[in-house]
Amino acid sequence: MNIKNICITGAAGNIAYSLIFRVLSNLPFKNTDKINLTLLDITQSQKSLIGLRYEVEDCAFSTLNSIEVTDNAENAFQESDYIIMVGAKPRSKGMERSDLILDNANIFKTQALIIDKVCSPSTKVIVVGNPANTNALILNYNTPSIPNRNITSLMKLDQNRAKSILAEKINEQVEDIQQMIIWGNHSTTQVPDLSNCLLNAEQINVDDIWIQNTFIPKVQKRGGEIIEFRGLSSAASAASAIYDHINIIDNGSNSWESLGIMTSGEYDIESGLMFSLPLNVTTEGYQVIKDLKIDTYIKTLIKLSEKELLKERDIVKSYLP
Amino acid sequence: MNIKNICITGAAGNIAYSLIFRVLSNLPFKNTDKINLTLLDITQSQKSLIGLRYEVEDCAFSTLNSIEVTDNAENAFQESDYIIMVGAKPRSKGMERSDLILDNANIFKTQALIIDKVCSPSTKVIVVGNPANTNALILNYNTPSIPNRNITSLMKLDQNRAKSILAEKINEQVEDIQQMIIWGNHSTTQVPDLSNCLLNAEQINVDDIWIQNTFIPKVQKRGGEIIEFRGLSSAASAASAIYDHINIIDNGSNSWESLGIMTSGEYDIESGLMFSLPLNVTTEGYQVIKDLKIDTYIKTLIKLSEKELLKERDIVKSYLP
Repeated sequence: MNIKNICITGAAGNIAYSLIFRVLSNLPFKNTDKINLTLLDITQSQKSLIGLRYEVEDCAFSTLNSIEVTDNAENAFQESDYIIMVGAKPRSKGMERSDLILDNANIFKTQALIIDKVCSPSTKVIVVGNPANTNALILNYNTPSIPNRNITSLMKLDQNRAKSILAEKINEQVEDIQQMIIWGNHSTTQVPDLSNCLLNAEQINVDDIWIQNTFIPKVQKRGGEIIEFRGLSSAASAASAIYDHINIIDNGSNSWESLGIMTSGEYDIESGLMFSLPLNVTTEGYQVIKDLKIDTYIKTLIKLSEKELLKERDIVKSYLP
Repeated sequence: MNIKNICITGAAGNIAYSLIFRVLSNLPFKNTDKINLTLLDITQSQKSLIGLRYEVEDCAFSTLNSIEVTDNAENAFQESDYIIMVGAKPRSKGMERSDLILDNANIFKTQALIIDKVCSPSTKVIVVGNPANTNALILNYNTPSIPNRNITSLMKLDQNRAKSILAEKINEQVEDIQQMIIWGNHSTTQVPDLSNCLLNAEQINVDDIWIQNTFIPKVQKRGGEIIEFRGLSSAASAASAIYDHINIIDNGSNSWESLGIMTSGEYDIESGLMFSLPLNVTTEGYQVIKDLKIDTYIKTLIKLSEKELLKERDIVKSYLP
């Protein structure tokens, strides 16, 4: 029997509540029969986590080997094959974005040091909590024992949103669209780029005005749109994207993917940022897709997203070695 | 391509929020490629339902053919293959249980008349909203055009809970336990009965004192325990049980199941109640498992649950033809 150890942080939150049951209902890990699940959250959430554990047990999932809830990060991270970092401090009313970034920098540096201490180099870490790319950057710089390529940040939600919005526009099914790219930061500066998109292996023609004035801003602001309508931020769709992200990393993908990875000079983007790039992903790892033609409009937007990430990196510089 | 039409009521609630994404991530229907999903809820929830639709679209599920949100039950129910009735009025503070039953009787009678008018006799209806058995009873009596056997109420959550609690006690895996029965009402009078339970086809021996003093009350009160710890009632585990219930009805089951069905004199239980009985379920329908030996203790409890359902039926008698 093959068993994997999975840890989820921010386990008492809404995204985790969607993610946990989704993962257990159909494991996204290759050659894996069961998982040991560890749910981490702050001390004040422990009672609610026990209730969550009861609910998980009440599903009688045959994929669950064991479940533990804890507020002790060291115990939680130890021996994890995957750590899904959903937890982050949310922005409170009147809070400056720079303060939010700093508060989370502090959390992610603390957790990074623990991961570096207790985890094996093969541990894979997926960062979801916002600002995801900069949190992942701090994590990456403060875990010298974990290879950079084992730490990725979530961009799949943006890619799924972009696909869905395009599919609706051209009145086609999402699964027939390939090669949708998201460049940059998981924020409103992200750059959904459909210049390479295919519909059943054929090029798609949509007019530039729609792309620039509707498509790109709609994808960039979709998170806000969800909050406006639901009164709550995206949870189940974020969880679904995390599920897809895990699946892609663990099983590889036939299609182009966009994950936040550590840059090393690709496409003239500053090295040492966590940035979403077009990737081929196999079970052996990922390769950046090279030599794509990028038009001036998209190039300008990519530069804006890079600029935002450089600014975020500047804010957290005291958390980087 | 095979497409099924699925309608979910109470779609803006927490159970539906877990259920919708679970269903789309891995369709529980046999020979089905995609679904047309219709989400029904009250007028005041329509804005939030639009946000929910956006989130569903943002998952880029290849299993979704179309999604519609509405407050119009007639449009929602029309041409449905399955109607999952999650919606019900919840108990508010200080409300008498009999008033809650009557309020829901009113809702379910209204919906029944619409189903009877617009649905085909092959439509399958699963009742989840509480009091589920009595709501299902009203539905059953007021839909003469739908065969009784196409209307069932959810008991799978109770069966899953009972399995999980037994598995923990005997330190075994849930999937190795078979033939767990729940008798009666989906309420604190339900009767989890492990007298026929097998562990990998072998009889299980657990002592009667644990069964009577711990096991049965723990299963009966599990819903309350979840609320106590989470501060919220079961949602994801209820959704998981609904998923299992759909799967059982649509694909059949190798194991014994417990669904709420219309009684017709089995085991000396009053005819014409919606009552959980042990069933064999195939793609052709269900058969009550007959001639099980029931000990005096369990028999007494079954009678108490029957008494409760008779009382509920008495409260709603003006809603029954």
